[in-house]
Amino acid sequence: MTEIVDIDKKYIENSLKQKMNVLKDNRFLMDEVFIPISKALKLDVDEVIEIFAKKLDFASCYELHAYAEQARMGCLGRKVDIDLGLCWLSDFFGLIKKEEADLIRKKVVESHLLYKKPYKEALEEGRQMILKLLKEE
Amino acid sequence: MTEIVDIDKKYIENSLKQKMNVLKDNRFLMDEVFIPISKALKLDVDEVIEIFAKKLDFASCYELHAYAEQARMGCLGRKVDIDLGLCWLSDFFGLIKKEEADLIRKKVVESHLLYKKPYKEALEEGRQMILKLLKEE
Repeated sequence: MTEIVDIDKKYIENSLKQKMNVLKDNRFLMDEVFIPISKALKLDVDEVIEIFAKKLDFASCYELHAYAEQARMGCLGRKVDIDLGLCWLSDFFGLIKKEEADLIRKKVVESHLLYKKPYKEALEEGRQMILKLLKEE
Repeated sequence: MTEIVDIDKKYIENSLKQKMNVLKDNRFLMDEVFIPISKALKLDVDEVIEIFAKKLDFASCYELHAYAEQARMGCLGRKVDIDLGLCWLSDFFGLIKKEEADLIRKKVVESHLLYKKPYKEALEEGRQMILKLLKEE
């Protein structure tokens, strides 16, 4: 009986290690997911990877890259909302229409992620679009 | 005819000035809305106030305080999502349940806005809650 429990334990340990290796080998996940999360949570990056490996099965570990692409776009969009004050200007005060805010957010995210502009420059483009809209008579 | 146009212009100018005074006199709006927006948009704070005054009628200028209270809660919640990585952990990777993320966000926002804890301290409380959830076996 003890032997079976030991084998079981060994199996879980091994599978965890394998999942961690799958995740670690993915440079994109490392740079765009695990390192930023480790900074936000002030956790060692290996601990972050272990948390993911424990919560996900093998298939999900391989699928994580696709989710991460979506998450990167989505979460960056929310950061743009905060950094440009769009949350205030559009959602709460209605000084900028929702469709316009969506367009500005999209432009900034694309500039940075697709056209590789530094985030500050992409943000500056968004800022100029906002100023133009706000100063329209 | 020129006279009527002049009177009209004068009236609009005066009403703009009055609206700007209403907005400027409100310390809360100044600290929580106009100054943060002026920083985000790199605009002079008077320009920000003028934009609001031009877009809003008198009634809306007086109502702005109530909207601003809501906006402050709402927009801070979104900042918490970014700063704690909840956007990634909950919305996209599902490592933290939506209801748990809502609770953490609410706790941090309340700690800071209602109980006046410095934002960093409030954030730290949220971080601890996240770590506890993530490390649960």
